This record gives sequence, structure tokens and C-alpha cells, in this order.
Amino acid sequence: MNKIVVIGGVAAGLKAAAKARRGDPQASITVLERGKLISYGACGMPYYVGGDVNDIEDLMKTPVGIVRSSAFFKNVKDLDVLIQTEATAIDRQAKVVTVKKLATGETDTIPYDKLVIATGASPIKPPLPGVALDNIFSLWHPDDAKMIRQGIEAGNFKHAVIIGAGLVGMEMAEALTKRQLQVTVVEMKEQIFPAFLDAEIAGIASKYAVAKGITLLTEEKVERFTGETRVTAVETDKRTIPADLVILAIGARPNVELAKTAGLTIGVTGAIVVDEEMRTNDPDIYAGGDCVENINRLSGQKVFAPMGSTANKHGRVIGENLCGGHVKFKGVLNTVVAKLHNLTVGKTGLSERDAKQLGYDYITAMVAGHDKPHYMPGAKPITVKLIAEVQTGKVLGMQAVGEGEVAKRVDVVAAVLTLGGTIDDLFDIDLSYAPPYNSPIDNVAVAANAVMNKLAGKFKGISPLVAKEKLENGKTVFLDVRTPDEWKQIRLSDSPNIKYIPLGQLRNRVAELNKQDEVVAFCKISLRGYDAEGILEGAGFENVKVMEGGIVSWPFS
Amino acid sequence: MNKIVVIGGVAAGLKAAAKARRGDPQASITVLERGKLISYGACGMPYYVGGDVNDIEDLMKTPVGIVRSSAFFKNVKDLDVLIQTEATAIDRQAKVVTVKKLATGETDTIPYDKLVIATGASPIKPPLPGVALDNIFSLWHPDDAKMIRQGIEAGNFKHAVIIGAGLVGMEMAEALTKRQLQVTVVEMKEQIFPAFLDAEIAGIASKYAVAKGITLLTEEKVERFTGETRVTAVETDKRTIPADLVILAIGARPNVELAKTAGLTIGVTGAIVVDEEMRTNDPDIYAGGDCVENINRLSGQKVFAPMGSTANKHGRVIGENLCGGHVKFKGVLNTVVAKLHNLTVGKTGLSERDAKQLGYDYITAMVAGHDKPHYMPGAKPITVKLIAEVQTGKVLGMQAVGEGEVAKRVDVVAAVLTLGGTIDDLFDIDLSYAPPYNSPIDNVAVAANAVMNKLAGKFKGISPLVAKEKLENGKTVFLDVRTPDEWKQIRLSDSPNIKYIPLGQLRNRVAELNKQDEVVAFCKISLRGYDAEGILEGAGFENVKVMEGGIVSWPFS
Repeated sequence: MNKIVVIGGVAAGLKAAAKARRGDPQASITVLERGKLISYGACGMPYYVGGDVNDIEDLMKTPVGIVRSSAFFKNVKDLDVLIQTEATAIDRQAKVVTVKKLATGETDTIPYDKLVIATGASPIKPPLPGVALDNIFSLWHPDDAKMIRQGIEAGNFKHAVIIGAGLVGMEMAEALTKRQLQVTVVEMKEQIFPAFLDAEIAGIASKYAVAKGITLLTEEKVERFTGETRVTAVETDKRTIPADLVILAIGARPNVELAKTAGLTIGVTGAIVVDEEMRTNDPDIYAGGDCVENINRLSGQKVFAPMGSTANKHGRVIGENLCGGHVKFKGVLNTVVAKLHNLTVGKTGLSERDAKQLGYDYITAMVAGHDKPHYMPGAKPITVKLIAEVQTGKVLGMQAVGEGEVAKRVDVVAAVLTLGGTIDDLFDIDLSYAPPYNSPIDNVAVAANAVMNKLAGKFKGISPLVAKEKLENGKTVFLDVRTPDEWKQIRLSDSPNIKYIPLGQLRNRVAELNKQDEVVAFCKISLRGYDAEGILEGAGFENVKVMEGGIVSWPFS
Repeated sequence: MNKIVVIGGVAAGLKAAAKARRGDPQASITVLERGKLISYGACGMPYYVGGDVNDIEDLMKTPVGIVRSSAFFKNVKDLDVLIQTEATAIDRQAKVVTVKKLATGETDTIPYDKLVIATGASPIKPPLPGVALDNIFSLWHPDDAKMIRQGIEAGNFKHAVIIGAGLVGMEMAEALTKRQLQVTVVEMKEQIFPAFLDAEIAGIASKYAVAKGITLLTEEKVERFTGETRVTAVETDKRTIPADLVILAIGARPNVELAKTAGLTIGVTGAIVVDEEMRTNDPDIYAGGDCVENINRLSGQKVFAPMGSTANKHGRVIGENLCGGHVKFKGVLNTVVAKLHNLTVGKTGLSERDAKQLGYDYITAMVAGHDKPHYMPGAKPITVKLIAEVQTGKVLGMQAVGEGEVAKRVDVVAAVLTLGGTIDDLFDIDLSYAPPYNSPIDNVAVAANAVMNKLAGKFKGISPLVAKEKLENGKTVFLDVRTPDEWKQIRLSDSPNIKYIPLGQLRNRVAELNKQDEVVAFCKISLRGYDAEGILEGAGFENVKVMEGGIVSWPFS
């Protein structure tokens, strides 16, 4: 009888165990979990804090309300799940795991034929003065979430400071602003979502966050936390911020001590190295979930990218291979999506920053547009940035942001990336079309077309980052071609370099512009800006550009 | 100077013309449109009738409210759009189009170097007695939509009969039930959406439509319409249905008379034949939009599949090629999506019916599940059916239905189909994951996994159609493993062949079942049904099956 031992009972571990049970009904399968809880939906915690989820228990239940307890797993999956049981050592020669019962302090040994390490990751706690004060939390365990919510509901928290503007940090910024707290996010890097968004897309999200009342402090470093027993302030290199609640969200580190001590190989990312079959350098030991490193399918680089979705895929692969399978996990695209009130940001594949670092000869295009026909109720704009390789047209990455439907577009591009598709392939996809769901030409197809037009020299788009420099240097004429109503409502800036001619009048008023000038045309989304480029080029202008994404995508306030 | 003439000014024609202008600023480009309106969002008409869109003019305007008139296209795109101007003949030798000014009856000739035929399609009017009575409409032109809506708002219509349960028919069924009309849909075939959905998926949608108050009459043939001047009843081969409003929605025919008379090749589908560059058999004449036939990328078969999305792609390809390009249109996947109140149905690629007809050795799996984690507000179930080739694992098609997010999943599979991906590729895609948008394992990945498990013999799923036969033949034990609460709320049927044992008790109550019996396990979505299969097989049962999709996907009332 095959003896399978799994260390870790949250996502990858239990998935592997359940899958192995289907492959081998006779095996003895033991899952060791040092905590009290197993199989909980950790990613749901910000939504519990924010109030979308009423009961923390919901994160631990099946859809019909059964708690995923040890008894449940025994009963339904025939798995022996031992909670409050920490694996303290692995003897690879003897093939034995030493465990400690945390409730009693007893130790024991459990023999294995095949071992799975799914020890997860832990939040990084910065070694700063005062970090141990009360009311400084990482949102890592349901107990954290419960204490934060209880504090909010008891009226103890008014001023929250979130350290780190990544996924968890910004999700918590939403949650806490929904709870009427004053929220300040402090980020060392120069933008929010620094790990995956390019600056101009992050800028759109920042502008939105600020409009929702979130204070964003970038390029700012926390130096200490002050207070008697409870935190009362966060001191940065620039200021002191009053705080009665602090959320540490500066990332996580893989839990690799056990593996490392057992002599398993740890990679450049600090996580456990596994091969395509999720096997460590010991052929009888698999590892998966947040404690292992992944390969980025596009760059081929090793990455530490802990995600619940990836952990579940690992679990399936390990479960199959524990029973003699040879299933491969081919890697990740570093896809992410995040909600910030009614805004969604998403990304898949390489960012422009990644593409540059990797030495690609790449081209980008950014387009804005409604997520369905403008005449439909609820149509909202989104901005899509596409990155492709110049010579092959291969899609390298995509980012999107907006109040409209972003996740669908990210997922379509993720599918194209998985199969190595080009911008032509992306344009060609017969995507579902009906007015409640989409425009006849989907936003990603518009973006693909913009890349094609740029490659063909027909569309001379520039990013808002470049546009801003040009606007400030004063040598370029900016041409706003919107309607008088739009012009009244909002302006790109009050710069005297902006000339206003509605598109409908442009053909007759071309003489007001100088053919020798560099002209940057734009409108709300810059589709009319592109028409303006056509009109001016037709009239003999030779240095006309379009500000990609238009006013909707202008990332500056 | 290149003289380009385009016949048809709705979707493909104007897109081709605008694109050609970008490629050739000097060309003379004339667009001939026999109607008064150009470039309108025809697909939005059901939403105008239903009240989602307030003003029919919105379908003819740009997002900032500018009417897309001839003057607009002249001004912005430098196109000469002649409305109420019908092309009556093409002289391919002389390269001249004869036109008739419909307002005055005058005729004229217009020479061309390159011609584009984008004459669209027309609704099929059945040659039945009484079809010319008042208040019998096709929803084809904005004037139809206006008259229907005016009649509704004047209180003239109470009993609507819709002929045809395809896309337009069912969209109108939604629109008219929203307007509080009594709606009956009469369909000759045995199911709704007969052209693209398999029976069990259509059944789920039918059940929903009936619950929304729509009367569905399938396998029923309209024989005549009766009334004095206005229609008062629809007579079918089975009954007489009182009606004060009739919508004809039995499909469309391509407008090919002009092309045919000019000697251009018409295909097996009745539409104009074009090559990959959208060129007819005359090298100077292109054709696109609803008047041409397309190729299905999967089957290689010619299809007549008029869609606004496809027409726009055609327009782009033609526009590029008019200016010396060699861009190819590679075909369609017959992707569709439709909204029926809060339900969405969608499909891409081949249906099971198609796969069977084409002689594929295929496998299907149907899975149900929430569209995001069950603990998130607004999580709703969807049912996904996946069709794949047995030997290669190549994905052939997908259908989905439910109140949850369907369009995203359809589009992801459309991307995989475009690139020839397999079920492994589909499972592997690093789709965006965060609780507001998705579960860690997306519904399409669950479906891909179900196909893999079926191929490996681990999951013995049967479709609800097969299950129903087994339930009725009485030789099979159906095993419902839901919770007592669920059992109280709803039953699959009152058949005595259904045995009820909650999953949590199954391991201890196995003796109540007979190992010799065929057992079909199920639950709400049949995930616990699959667990039950595991428990029973572990206990030595050899003939256990799972009813795919569970009660959520049961297509029978």
C-alpha cells in the first residue's frame, strides 16, 4: 500500500491529496497541517473585512454550507487530515517525517513512500522599530481578518495606513474605504501595483483611487511605527502619519526551511525548485503551491508568483503524478486581476518593463473604448495596452484598466499567450458578440489593430508619458478635437499649447495649424484623434502623432 | 487616382471605405446606400424595443452623440456616401455601376477601378397566407423597431407571437416580456436556438424562458396569419394563437441578386463566394458582410453566418486589400452569445451535433459551477459543455448557459479554438484570478479536467439526456447525495428510482445499495456526485455513473 504524506492543508496540498485518492483508492494518504484550519479561501479575506462576505466561516465551507473539516475530508475523500500537527523534519534516507502535535507538544514520526511539500508562504514582516505593536496586521490568516473586522465594527479604527501598494494592499484599501476609514497607502516604489503594471496604466488606477478618497504616498519609505502598546502613528522618511490600524502588505516569502534543512534545492527566487512534473531534486518528494518557484512561460525565467489559481493547478499535477502519471505544469503568465471599488486592473504576460529588460524588440499600443456599445446601459470605458514582438508579431503581454469589463479581455489574451499567438491571431478570434456583452470589434481586437497600424506606419501613437513630456517642453501643438460640450466639461490641462478644433471643423480650419509643427491629436479616447491624424496627413502635415488612450487614459491629475 | 465604389453603407461597406481612405488618401471613394440610414447599430434594436435603449437615434450616433450621416463621413473620413441610391447593375467589362436615385427615379452610372459589394442580407418572409397583414414585422430596419415600440407604448399590443426561436426571436422574447406582453414563440424544430445549441443546453435555456413567462411551442409549424387588416391570430398545425403583434424571426437570406446578375459566383450556402482576401471571382470586386459566405475554421465548411462582428472584420480586410494589401480573413467559429433576461447562452466552435455530422471521434463533458467563489455576493451558477477530439485532445467546441458570467468563458475557448489548442492547453491557461471575478479553477478548466478524467476512465459522466432515459426505464438506481435542506427544497423528480443518501452518510450506508445495480450519482452540480462515484467505486461498485451538471443543469421540467 502506497503511503502518501502531504505537508500543508490549504490549497495545493489538499488538492494533491484528493486527486491522489481518485488515482489510488487503496493508498494511505495523510495530510499534516500546523494550523487549526484547512482548505480556506484565503483570497476572500479582504472581502470579509470590506463586508461583502458576512461570515468568515463562509471561506471555510463548501457551497452548500458544510465546513471543510478533517471529518469532512475523511468522510468524503478518505483523507487523514491532522490539524495542529507541524512537520518539523524530513529524513529522506529513512523516508520519515517527524511531526509535533502543537496542542500537546508530543512528537511522532510518519513514514512515507511519496511526500508532498505544500508549506505555503508567509507575509514579510519588515524589521522596523515598533512593528510588534498592537493593531499592526498582515492579512494572512482568518484570525487577522476577524480581528480587523471586529476592531472596525467596535469603532476602534479610523485611520488606516497600508504598507505596500500591491494586490493585497490595494484590495485592503478598497475594503477599508468601504468601511469609512481614512486610508493612506505607503509604497516605496514610484507607482501602485509596481510588480506588474506599467506606469501609465498604474497612473490611471492611482487617479481613480485618489478620487475614491485613498491617499497614495509613493516613493516613500516607512521607518518606524510608534505608540505605547497600540500603534498610533507611522513614521516615513517624509512625514508622520497618524494611524490606529496598520496593514503590512509588502509581500510574502516561501516557507522553505523544512525543505532546505532536508537538503532539497532552493532556487534563485528563494522558493523550492521543482521540475515540470512538480518533483523536487528528491524523486520521491513533490512540492507545490506558494512554496515553490514557477517558470514564466514567455520569458522562461524563474519567478516567485504565489497565486491560489496556480496552487490548485500544482495540486492537480502532483496528484496525478503521485499515482504514476507524468502530467506537466508548463508555467505561469503572471496573470493578475484586482478590483478597486468599481475599477478593475488586470495584466497577463510581460509588462513593457519586462519586455525591455528581456531585450525584446517590442511595440506597444494603448487604446481606450467602451466595453460594449455606447448605447447600451452600463457601458463603461476600459483602456487596453498591448505589447508585441516587432518581427514576429507575437503577443508578449497585455494590461487593462477601467470601470468596464476587464477580466474577460485579460483572459482572452492569456489564452493567446499560452498558445504563442500573434496580434493577427488576436484580431482574428471570433469573439462572442451581442450588444449586452460586447461591441462588434472587441477592445483587444482594436488594440491588435492599433499595433498593426503602428507597424504599418499608419498610426503614429505616443504614450501619455511621452505626451506629457511634449506638453511640458512647449514645442509641440496639442490638438483637442472633441465636441464643444466635451471641451466645456473637462480639459486635458490648462496648457496654452493645447489648440481646440472640433473634428467636424478640422478640414476647414487646417490653415490655423502650421505644417512644420509637431502636432499631437487627441480626444476622449483618441479615435477621433486618429481621424484627425488622417485629415492632417491628407492635408500635407508630416509630423502628426496621436496621444494613445485619449483623456480617458490620461494618468496624470 | 484610384476610384473605389462600395455598394452598401451599414457595417462592412463603411468599414472597408474608411480603412481604404487611411491606406490611400488620394483615392475617390463612393459609398452607395439604398436606404436613408447608414452605419447604424442594427443589433441594438431588440434593446430599443425592450426599453434598455431610450432613443432609436442612439443606434446611429457616435459615442459623443454625433449622427453618422453622409456629412459626417464626408467631413471626417472624406467619403462620398450617397443615400437612397440603389446600385441596379454592375457592368464588369466597362467597370461601371448603374445607380438609381430612389427619391427622384433618376439613373446614373459610376465608374470604378475597385468595387466592394456589401449588400447585406434580408429577413426571410415566409410565403404564408396573411403574412402581409398589419402588425407583422421583421426586426430588420430601425423603422420596424420604431413601429413596434410605438405600438407597445400606445397599448396596442398585448399578445405577441414570435416565429422562430433563434437569436433575434429569443432576444425579442426578452424585450417583449419586459414590456409586459404575453409572448409565445413558435419554433419548427424541437428546441430553441436550434442552429447552434445542443439539446441539453437549449433545454436549460427553455426552462428559464418558461419560468420568465414565455410560452414556447416547439415542433410546431405556422400555417397562416388571420385578421382583417391587422393580424389577430396565428394558426399553426396544432392550434390557433391570438395575436396582435407578430415578429418574423426565421432567419435571413443574403442579398446576392446584383452580384449574381453580374456573373459573380454564388456558393452552396446561397451567399457570394470570396477567397481569403475577400475577393470575388472578379479580381477587381471584393465582397463582405452579410452577403458573403464564410468558412468555419474548424470544419472547413462553407457557412452562411451573418454577424456584425464578422462584417466589421471583413471590412478591415477589404479596406487593406483595396490599397494593395494581402490581408487574409481566416474564417469564423460560429461563435454566438445571447441574453435572455438574466440568463446568458453562448457557443463557439462545433456543437456535438456538428461534431457527430462531421464524423469526429469526440468526447464531451458538461460541468456546472459558480462563476466565482460561492461566498462572493452575486456568484451565480453556469453550465459549460466542452467537446474535444478523443485522439488529439483538440478542443472542438464549447457551449455555456447560466445566470453567471458566460461570455468570458466562450471567448477564452474561442481563442483556444483559433489557435488549435487542446484540452490540456485550456486547463493550463493562467487565467486571471481574484474572488470578485473568478474561482481559483475557472469553469472552463473544470470542464477540461472533466474531459481528461473521462478519457482516463476516472469520471464516468453521462449527459442528462441519457440520464433521463435511464430514470424512465426503471432499471437504474439514481443516487441523490445532497444535504437534507437541499433535498427538502427541490427534487430531480418524484421517481421511485431515486435513492437519497447525503454524501456525508454514504460511506456508512453503502450497504443500502446493491453492487450489482447501475447507480447514477448526482447532486446540485454533481461535484459531490463525483465524490460519491469515488466512494462507491472504492467500496467495490463497478457500474457507477455521474449525471453531468447535476440538478442545476437538468433540462427537463
